[in-house]
Amino acid sequence: MSQLNNNLVNMEKHHSSFENFVRTLPVPILKEFVKGSSLQAVGFKKSNQVLTTKDVAAITKEFPLSIEKSENKILVTDGVINIKGKRIAVLFSGGPASGGHNVVVGIKKALGEHNTLFATKAGPKGLLAGEFFEITDAMAASICNTGGFDFMGSDRTKIKSEEQFTQVKEVVTKHKIDTIIIVGGDDSNTNAAVLAELLAPLGVTVIGVPKTIDGDLQLGDLLPISFGFDTATKIYAEMVGNILQDTASSLKYWHFVKIMGRAASHVTLETSLQTRPAYTIISEEILEKKMSLAQVIDDIARVVKLRADKGINHGLVLIPEGFIEFIPEMQVLLTAMDEIMGHNLDKIVAMDITTKKEFIMSNLNAQTKALYQELPSNIQDMLLLERDSHGNLPLSQIPTETLVIEMVKARIAKLQETASKDSLFASYNFNALNHFFGYEGRCGAPTLFDAAYCLNLGLVAGSLALGGFTGYMAAITDLQNGGVAQAIPLTGLLNIERRHGQDEFVIEKALVKLNSPAFEFFVSRRKQWSENDCFTSPGPRQLMGPVAKMVPITVALNRNYENLTFDLGADTEVK
Amino acid sequence: MSQLNNNLVNMEKHHSSFENFVRTLPVPILKEFVKGSSLQAVGFKKSNQVLTTKDVAAITKEFPLSIEKSENKILVTDGVINIKGKRIAVLFSGGPASGGHNVVVGIKKALGEHNTLFATKAGPKGLLAGEFFEITDAMAASICNTGGFDFMGSDRTKIKSEEQFTQVKEVVTKHKIDTIIIVGGDDSNTNAAVLAELLAPLGVTVIGVPKTIDGDLQLGDLLPISFGFDTATKIYAEMVGNILQDTASSLKYWHFVKIMGRAASHVTLETSLQTRPAYTIISEEILEKKMSLAQVIDDIARVVKLRADKGINHGLVLIPEGFIEFIPEMQVLLTAMDEIMGHNLDKIVAMDITTKKEFIMSNLNAQTKALYQELPSNIQDMLLLERDSHGNLPLSQIPTETLVIEMVKARIAKLQETASKDSLFASYNFNALNHFFGYEGRCGAPTLFDAAYCLNLGLVAGSLALGGFTGYMAAITDLQNGGVAQAIPLTGLLNIERRHGQDEFVIEKALVKLNSPAFEFFVSRRKQWSENDCFTSPGPRQLMGPVAKMVPITVALNRNYENLTFDLGADTEVK
Repeated sequence: MSQLNNNLVNMEKHHSSFENFVRTLPVPILKEFVKGSSLQAVGFKKSNQVLTTKDVAAITKEFPLSIEKSENKILVTDGVINIKGKRIAVLFSGGPASGGHNVVVGIKKALGEHNTLFATKAGPKGLLAGEFFEITDAMAASICNTGGFDFMGSDRTKIKSEEQFTQVKEVVTKHKIDTIIIVGGDDSNTNAAVLAELLAPLGVTVIGVPKTIDGDLQLGDLLPISFGFDTATKIYAEMVGNILQDTASSLKYWHFVKIMGRAASHVTLETSLQTRPAYTIISEEILEKKMSLAQVIDDIARVVKLRADKGINHGLVLIPEGFIEFIPEMQVLLTAMDEIMGHNLDKIVAMDITTKKEFIMSNLNAQTKALYQELPSNIQDMLLLERDSHGNLPLSQIPTETLVIEMVKARIAKLQETASKDSLFASYNFNALNHFFGYEGRCGAPTLFDAAYCLNLGLVAGSLALGGFTGYMAAITDLQNGGVAQAIPLTGLLNIERRHGQDEFVIEKALVKLNSPAFEFFVSRRKQWSENDCFTSPGPRQLMGPVAKMVPITVALNRNYENLTFDLGADTEVK
Repeated sequence: MSQLNNNLVNMEKHHSSFENFVRTLPVPILKEFVKGSSLQAVGFKKSNQVLTTKDVAAITKEFPLSIEKSENKILVTDGVINIKGKRIAVLFSGGPASGGHNVVVGIKKALGEHNTLFATKAGPKGLLAGEFFEITDAMAASICNTGGFDFMGSDRTKIKSEEQFTQVKEVVTKHKIDTIIIVGGDDSNTNAAVLAELLAPLGVTVIGVPKTIDGDLQLGDLLPISFGFDTATKIYAEMVGNILQDTASSLKYWHFVKIMGRAASHVTLETSLQTRPAYTIISEEILEKKMSLAQVIDDIARVVKLRADKGINHGLVLIPEGFIEFIPEMQVLLTAMDEIMGHNLDKIVAMDITTKKEFIMSNLNAQTKALYQELPSNIQDMLLLERDSHGNLPLSQIPTETLVIEMVKARIAKLQETASKDSLFASYNFNALNHFFGYEGRCGAPTLFDAAYCLNLGLVAGSLALGGFTGYMAAITDLQNGGVAQAIPLTGLLNIERRHGQDEFVIEKALVKLNSPAFEFFVSRRKQWSENDCFTSPGPRQLMGPVAKMVPITVALNRNYENLTFDLGADTEVK
C-alpha cells in the first residue's frame, strides 16, 4: 500500500489532520490554574453575594442540608489546594454540546495524579447501572479540543423516582465515589441539586457544569452563557452566511432556515446578529406582542414584496424551532385540539383522516376553527397526529419552515392580485427553499471560546469536587478580563413550577428579553437588513490567527463588552 | 451608540471580522506570476501535447478557425508579456462555486493598470444585455478570498440561438470587448468553445475557467479538479463529521444525508473519504453493477442489522443527489412512465391521483409495476408529477433521502420478524433522521486550496486573454510541486452527443471510475467502516496553521500524490 493510503488508514477513528492538530493546540487558561508548565486545582471560599429566587422559602425547606452549608452564597477562589485519594465520576446528560470533552480534560487536570476520575458511560443511565471506566492521561489527551460527547456518550434519563435514588446511593457506595459531576442543561443541573441534597448524608457531593447549545441557561454576569452555544451558533451562522452569499449570487431564491433551540430564540438571535438576513422571527417577541400567525406571515410577505419591487428577488428568513408554540392563538388551538382528542380517544382511533378532521373542526370554536382552516393541509393533517405519553403533540415533527413558506406563498399570490400591473412585484416569481440546522451544530469541533471556557469550567468543577463542596455549578465570569472562576449554589437558582399536575423544582429557562441590549440592537437594525442586502459571512471557525478569540455577539451586547474579543488568560499547552 | 454597537454596524455588508481578515490573507502564487511585491502576466506557447477525442474529425469540421490556430495543442508558459489597452469582460455562468471571486482578482492582477477589466452582471444574461461595469483595484481588494459569486451575480442562460449569437456580436462590438472570460462548468466551457469560433472573425477571443462543485469537470493530470469542489466537499465533510460525532454521542440515531451533485458521485465519494461513515452509496457503482433499488436497500439494512447486533444503534448513510437516476430499473420505470404520460396527456389531466395511479399501473409491464409498487406512497405520488418542458420529471424534487429511509425501515421490520428472539437486533428501534447538504457548500469562504487555485487560474486566464489566445481553458497542474500553468484547447475536449433529438457539442462529464485509485481505496476500507465506528471529523476549514494547505483526498489518490498537502508557490500578499 502506498504512503498516502497508509496515512489515510491511520486517520480513521478521530485522527484526521485537523483532529491531530487541535489536540495539541494551546488553550487560554485562567492564571490561578496555571503552575509553571502544568495545571493545578484551586480552593474556594464563600463570598458575600447571596442568590435568591421567589420560591426561596419553599426551596429552603426542601434542601435543608445543602442550604445550611452553602447559605446560597457564591463561591470565589481562595489559594491553591492539594487533595489526594478522591474518586470522582463525571457524566454527560442530555443533548451533546461542543466543549464537553474539554470539561472532562479540565477536571482531569484539576485532579492531578493523586485522585481518580471515572467516566460514566452513556449518561445518567450509566450512573444508575454503575457503568464507569477510569480516565487516563492518555485518554484526556486524545479528546482535548475535540467536539461531541462520544468519549463516553450521553442520554436523557431523568433520575427522579425513589427507586432510582436508591440505585444511585447503592452505586456510589459500591464504587466509593466521592463526587458526581453532572454536565448538563437546566433540568440536569436541577437534578444535580436534588442529588446533592439526597447524597449529603452519605458524604457524597455533586457538582454541575452549565451545558446547552440553546443558551437558555444563563444568569447575567454570573453565568454569561452555557457552553456549546458559541460553537453551535458559529456553525449555524457560517451555514446561513454561505446561503446568504448564495442568494445574492444566484439572484432567485428565498431560503427559509429553521434553527434548533427548543424554546428560547437565543440561537436564532445570535445567528441573525452574525449574518444580518432579511427577516428573523424571534418567538419571544411574537408571544409578548400577542401576534397572530397571519400577522407574522403578512410581515414576511411585506418584506418579500418590498424587495421584489426594488428588483431584489432573493432573501433569507430565520425561524426558531419553537416558533409555533409561542404564537398565542396557536397555543389556544393546540390546547383545544389536545382536549378534544383526549376526551374522544376511543371515537377518534377508528376514524379516517377526513372524518377525524371534520370531527375536530366541529368541536372547535369559530376563532380556533378559522385558524385551523388557514393552515396548509399537510400541517392540518400533522396536527391530528397522536399525542405523546404526556398528551402533547410532537411539535418538533411539524415542518415549521415549510408551513411558513406555504403560507407566505399564498399571501404573496393574494398581494400580487392587487399589485400595480407595471410593478416588478406583479410579475415576480417567489421561489423558496427550506433548511433545518440542528444536529450539525451540537458536536462540531469547539470554537476557541468553547474550548477555553470548558477547560476552565472543568478546572473549576474539579477544584470544587476536591474541595468537598456540593450543590454548586461551576462558572467563569468576566470573559474579557482574564476570567474569574466562581461557583453558583444550585439551590439559589431553583423555583417551583406546576408540571403535569405536580410541583417540580426548576431552574427557569432564560428567554430572550425584549429589553435586552442584544434584542434592542437587533430591532435597531432589522429594517435596514430587510430593505437591502446587508448580510455578512462570518466564515468557518478559525482556531489560530486574528479572528480566533471571539465571544457570541449577544453575550458581548448583553454584558456591555467593548468588543467581541475574549480574554480567558494566557494560551497554555494542556499537558 | 456604544463602541461595540458601532463596530457591529460597520460589519454589515461583508465586513465581519472574518471577511476583513481573509481579504489580506497571503495566498500561494506560482513563481512565474510573482514579480517583486506585485503580480504579472505571462506569455504562452504551444507544447507538443495534442488533445483528441473520439469525435475529433467532426469537431474539426465544426470549429475550423479555432483548430487551425490551436491544433488542439496544450499551451505552456513562455516568459513574461507586457500588453496594453485591452478591454476584457469576465462572467460567471451557472451555479456558484467558492473561489470565483479570486478568479476575478487573478485576472485583474494579470491585466495590471494598462488594461481594463469589466464585470458582466448576472451571467450570460448580462452579456446578452451588455450589462458591464468596470472592476477597480479597490473592488478586487474587496472580494479577494471571499466566497460566492455575488460580486457580479450569475445565471443559467445558455447562449445557443442564432438571435443570441447576433446579440453577443453586437454587444462585444459596441463595448469594444477584446476577450470574454467565461467562468463555468462543462456546458459553459462548451459554450465558450462555440463563442470562440463564432467571434474569431471579429478578432474577439474567448477563454474558459473550469468551475463546478460537482467535480465532474476534470481530466487526469491536465485538469486535476474544477474549482469549488474542495470548498464544497470540505463544508459537507465538516457537517457530516459533526453529525457522525453526534451519532456516537447520542447513541440512538441513523442519519441519512443527501449530498449535492447532479450526476457524478465525486462529491459524495470525497465526503465519504473525509469522514468514513457506515455506508456510502456511489451512483456509478449501482449503474455499473446493474443493482436494483431493492439490492441497495437490502445492503443498507444489512449494515444496520449488523451494527444493531453488536449494540451499535447509530450510523450514517451518504446518498448522492443523482442516485435515483443511476438505478437501471428506475431508469426503465421512469422512461416507461414518461411515455405513458406523454401519450395520454389529455386523459391524465382530468384524473384525480388515485385514478391516475391506477391508469399508469395498468399500462406498466409486470416488472416495472412491481418496482413502482415497492416505492413508498409519497414517492409513487411524486412520480406522477407533471413533466417539465423537456418531458422530464423534476428529479431533484424527489426526497431521495426519505425514500431510502422509508424503504430501509420497512426492510428492517421484515428482518426483525425472523431475527433470533434474544438478539439485540430483535428489539432494536430504528430511528432515522434526514438531511440535504447543497446550497451551504456553493458559496462558503474558499479553502486556502480554492483561494490559491482560483487566483492562479485567474492569472492564467488573464495572461491568455492578453496574449490573444482563444478557445482555451485555463489550467493549473502539478499541485504538489509548485504548480504548472497551462491552457487546454477547448475543442480538444469536445464530443458530439444526441440530446433531445439533435446533435450537440459536449464536454463529457467525468464520472467516478470504478477502477480509479480513489474508488478502489474506498472499497478497500468500507467494510471496516460499516462494522465499527471508524469515523473522522475533518473540522472547519482553517486558513492558517498546519492544516490549511490540503487538497481533496480523491485528487491526491487519483493523482498518486504522497500526501494531502498542496504546493502552489510561495504565500504572497495580493496587492
